[in-house]
Amino acid sequence: MEIMKVSSNSNPSKVAGAITSLLREHYQLQIQVIGAASLNQAMKAIAIARGYVAPSGQEIYCIPSFYDVTIDEQIITSLRLNVEIHEKDFSF
Amino acid sequence: MEIMKVSSNSNPSKVAGAITSLLREHYQLQIQVIGAASLNQAMKAIAIARGYVAPSGQEIYCIPSFYDVTIDEQIITSLRLNVEIHEKDFSF
Repeated sequence: MEIMKVSSNSNPSKVAGAITSLLREHYQLQIQVIGAASLNQAMKAIAIARGYVAPSGQEIYCIPSFYDVTIDEQIITSLRLNVEIHEKDFSF
Repeated sequence: MEIMKVSSNSNPSKVAGAITSLLREHYQLQIQVIGAASLNQAMKAIAIARGYVAPSGQEIYCIPSFYDVTIDEQIITSLRLNVEIHEKDFSF
């Protein structure tokens, strides 16, 4: 699975373009973020990317999970997002 | 659809319990957050709630979108999350 890192300085529109093209090719990707500000940028990017795929009847779903990352010898628990693209009206 | 507001002071474990019981009853809900810190708490709560529903073969998906909220006569663009529960292996 493709892994993308999004930081607090990332431009959500550019990230949205990257998400869209990766999803069109691979159907799923993983976004790693560290801290609330980078998560915010990643979620904005996903909201924007939804608009890029909506005309073809698709929807972007994200699934958060925890992972541990070591920074300066300290273990920090951070979030990663599994992002998937599906046809919009899949059945329950 | 049920609407839940999560703030930066919310306890992710408690929010996770509330998310799980609302999803079991209604299959979907909306979480409104204002600011990166509250989004972070909401996403942590979803990650925790995934563990509560996983044993029954279900997965929680979230879909971010923008909405405008007026605070002190200022319009702020914020994120909301549509949260849905589905059987884990739905087809692409």
